[in-house]
Amino acid sequence: MSAALTSIQDVQASPDLRRIAINKVGVKGIRHPVVVKDRSGGVQPTVADFNMYVRLPHDFKGTHMSRFVEILSSHERAISVESFREMLFEVASRLGAETGYIEMNFPYFVEKSAPVSGVRSLMDYNVTFLGRVTDGVDSHSTRVLVPATSLCPCSKKISAYGAHNQRAHITLTVESKEMIWIEELIDIAEQHASSQLYGVLKRPDEKFVTEQAYDNPKFVEDLARDIAVTLNADPRVVSYVVEVENFESIHNHSAYALIEGPPKEDELPDSRPTTQAPPSL
Amino acid sequence: MSAALTSIQDVQASPDLRRIAINKVGVKGIRHPVVVKDRSGGVQPTVADFNMYVRLPHDFKGTHMSRFVEILSSHERAISVESFREMLFEVASRLGAETGYIEMNFPYFVEKSAPVSGVRSLMDYNVTFLGRVTDGVDSHSTRVLVPATSLCPCSKKISAYGAHNQRAHITLTVESKEMIWIEELIDIAEQHASSQLYGVLKRPDEKFVTEQAYDNPKFVEDLARDIAVTLNADPRVVSYVVEVENFESIHNHSAYALIEGPPKEDELPDSRPTTQAPPSL
Amino acid sequence: MSAALTSIQDVQASPDLRRIAINKVGVKGIRHPVVVKDRSGGVQPTVADFNMYVRLPHDFKGTHMSRFVEILSSHERAISVESFREMLFEVASRLGAETGYIEMNFPYFVEKSAPVSGVRSLMDYNVTFLGRVTDGVDSHSTRVLVPATSLCPCSKKISAYGAHNQRAHITLTVESKEMIWIEELIDIAEQHASSQLYGVLKRPDEKFVTEQAYDNPKFVEDLARDIAVTLNADPRVVSYVVEVENFESIHNHSAYALIEGPPKEDELPDSRPTTQAPPSL
Amino acid sequence: MSAALTSIQDVQASPDLRRIAINKVGVKGIRHPVVVKDRSGGVQPTVADFNMYVRLPHDFKGTHMSRFVEILSSHERAISVESFREMLFEVASRLGAETGYIEMNFPYFVEKSAPVSGVRSLMDYNVTFLGRVTDGVDSHSTRVLVPATSLCPCSKKISAYGAHNQRAHITLTVESKEMIWIEELIDIAEQHASSQLYGVLKRPDEKFVTEQAYDNPKFVEDLARDIAVTLNADPRVVSYVVEVENFESIHNHSAYALIEGPPKEDELPDSRPTTQAPPSL
Repeated sequence: MSAALTSIQDVQASPDLRRIAINKVGVKGIRHPVVVKDRSGGVQPTVADFNMYVRLPHDFKGTHMSRFVEILSSHERAISVESFREMLFEVASRLGAETGYIEMNFPYFVEKSAPVSGVRSLMDYNVTFLGRVTDGVDSHSTRVLVPATSLCPCSKKISAYGAHNQRAHITLTVESKEMIWIEELIDIAEQHASSQLYGVLKRPDEKFVTEQAYDNPKFVEDLARDIAVTLNADPRVVSYVVEVENFESIHNHSAYALIEGPPKEDELPDSRPTTQAPPSL
Repeated sequence: MSAALTSIQDVQASPDLRRIAINKVGVKGIRHPVVVKDRSGGVQPTVADFNMYVRLPHDFKGTHMSRFVEILSSHERAISVESFREMLFEVASRLGAETGYIEMNFPYFVEKSAPVSGVRSLMDYNVTFLGRVTDGVDSHSTRVLVPATSLCPCSKKISAYGAHNQRAHITLTVESKEMIWIEELIDIAEQHASSQLYGVLKRPDEKFVTEQAYDNPKFVEDLARDIAVTLNADPRVVSYVVEVENFESIHNHSAYALIEGPPKEDELPDSRPTTQAPPSL
Repeated sequence: MSAALTSIQDVQASPDLRRIAINKVGVKGIRHPVVVKDRSGGVQPTVADFNMYVRLPHDFKGTHMSRFVEILSSHERAISVESFREMLFEVASRLGAETGYIEMNFPYFVEKSAPVSGVRSLMDYNVTFLGRVTDGVDSHSTRVLVPATSLCPCSKKISAYGAHNQRAHITLTVESKEMIWIEELIDIAEQHASSQLYGVLKRPDEKFVTEQAYDNPKFVEDLARDIAVTLNADPRVVSYVVEVENFESIHNHSAYALIEGPPKEDELPDSRPTTQAPPSL
Repeated sequence: MSAALTSIQDVQASPDLRRIAINKVGVKGIRHPVVVKDRSGGVQPTVADFNMYVRLPHDFKGTHMSRFVEILSSHERAISVESFREMLFEVASRLGAETGYIEMNFPYFVEKSAPVSGVRSLMDYNVTFLGRVTDGVDSHSTRVLVPATSLCPCSKKISAYGAHNQRAHITLTVESKEMIWIEELIDIAEQHASSQLYGVLKRPDEKFVTEQAYDNPKFVEDLARDIAVTLNADPRVVSYVVEVENFESIHNHSAYALIEGPPKEDELPDSRPTTQAPPSL
């Protein structure tokens, strides 16, 4: 930039006297094209929504918002998952911050074969990469929202025929020591659902998933727990949150369950299961 | 308002030379408390989102946005359904317009008894009153979004057991010559659904609605048609749109159907039903 | 598909006796990766949300929902704007329908240079292609949502300094005889705004857009009319809707204007402009 | 409930062997009419969205979802702010849980006088009551989303005239030892904004708020810090989060700042303000 331009006063860089640090300051809701590597070795172009923040020490009046967007822009039209980590460090260094954050949310597609006919179609998932760097050390989480079928065990048990089922949203947020593929998290969620979803199902496929869901009833509690058991056993997982929301087909509200893990030492159940029921109906 | 205040120039009232009339101009997305009368003779307080527009002739630069909100405010804290028509005429007259529009969208509650236990709870619906006045003649529509259960006839037919079902949104928009209660439109939608929804269901109720849905499978096409048949037979109905959206429990997208009615003369089917199938799978 | 599979009953293809045609039936809210050609000769990958419908004659019980998705899937991972028209005809033919509809909504990016520094960054827009085919004749509209700055002429005129301004959403829906580039519609909207938006603005750019907006105040009415004048003069345009919504910075609601065009013969203003003001404040 | 009804098996009350406690399980997104007390001594009816959860010990298979809704329903049509605490304890006791949570989100209205004309109108705010009870001890937070005007100090400083401004969302989430009125939190947010918003502004009012905003420019950082200073000085406040999001009128993304407080001992700045600027542009 020319001297003429830089002579315009830089209000943001002036000192601040209120002595209050800002935990996060930056830009929110910027869309940008990205490219994400998938497990099959390919790459898929998609569009991401970015939030980018830094911690601002107490003695700076403001951050330089345009630099966040310049970092996005400097990666040309496409930001790959490799460059995500690079961008995280760039945010911290270019903004002169000890701590930086990037959240990148995007639709992600997985090609699936229908269970009987084998017809192939794409399923879409919402994925978020969450990165944080502090004093040069970065940590990363991946959040995947997996839509699935849940079928109610109570409804199945008490009804002469049929069972209410519905679309459920299973959301895994997993911090890991080493890379876990998006597809691995999707697999974990889908294997524990009553049934998984597909873009295209022919009639024999529809028969299959209908019967599979009926054979495999799950409460939100079951789904969350079965996923927690799997994540507890994965040595790469540092911490996780599992959420399951059923858009109940018999109510106009959701059933919801959340488990944070892994369990802390003092949260582990002792060896004697309590079997006393809650106050009766 | 004092002379001092009115001496501030009224930019909006100046003439406009582009010679383009504006179909709708006004305020959008204002929230205001309202009171709505229900069929049982009571009134229920709720909160509405208003859109209020007028047609602006080609020779006025702008409308007076604050007057729309003043009309809302002048009805104190509560706007009853009676005063809706009054407000519609007020919009046209205060804005000096031949044509005025009000849309008022609000959550509405109906107390229901669970089908077996009789336990009472509230169900919530989104309702919109749509009013239009032109040259002193007003017309009114009511839109009701009724969430319900739909159960797939195909899934039931082809599966050894079970059937996928899901929450569906049934939306009726009905223009009528005389008043139709919100509850009447809700009843029409719910009586044709696989099952209706409830706030509270005890286990015997859950058994009931599960079996009822299984006994009463409907495609989005069936639901839309069955409702259209009922509306076609109602002499109060001037015109309608029926929409049904299934949030499919086996897909991550919706099935959707829309019927506009009543059918025009030339849309009526002739007497020979065509039975030829569409190109096979 | 094998004989065993096709022996499963096709419920949707059975005859229907209610004698009610369905205006639109199909799938809603399916996401799929697409590739869109831009004016500069390049292509950009993005992600689209599809609605796909057909008109269903009165004597068919249901449509075949999976075929819509198969059409999407058959275009591999990417659907180009060229294949949109092809898909439209395919929807009608594969579903055995006289009338078919496709709506394809996607974020679209345009690289812009900041007005003074020339720094380049992407701006994102929501675009929708709307196609309809009836008896082999297709028609197409493009909808573009262009976010922009609007600055209030009244506030500027009456205030000693400053003027309230805000983000506005300008939405053009244009049906045309021949192709109009997305970028052309964006240009029309942006040239009439108080100022256009940018991804990155350095300080001299921020000075420029601030002063430009102040020099160029516009009501929602002005914006809508100025755009209508431009569209009325474009021989390619068959019909259009212009909407402008200001997310007012001094209110918690929007100012809104809508113009449908081109004006019909009897809507054209006569030669004597009316200058009488609406009832005074 | 009759013996016949209770003989239906209670699947949820059966023991669970996965030995995983569930942090939160319950119902999400239920709407219900409520009545909220305001500072002026009145009450206002409104409509709330509820989330209600309990912690589920590892040895219960499921919670009883219908009981949450029964608690809502048992409070008849209206739930007052007084009964919120009561409901919180009821959730824990009826579900047999040590820990219970209620979140209640609702639009709330405050009548304001325009700053010059004195014209009265309602302003709407989103408010959330967040309650938690553990082992009989409850804690409460209130979240208020206050829309306001923010005007950019940089744009004002560098421009010959004008300054970009926009609607901002200021969100305070405050846990307190004793009751803080919703109106007090609104006042704190509005007093620090460039200007507050109103339902109705006449022209002299519009002049006033335009000039006031210009006289009072604030970055998101300023707004968040000024509010943090006020909350740090309030002895009733236990902890808080302040968020400010500017829907920038010159960009299609937001500027955002978040401060968590009060500052911990080791976060307090030392006595020597650092004045070194971040790396230059």
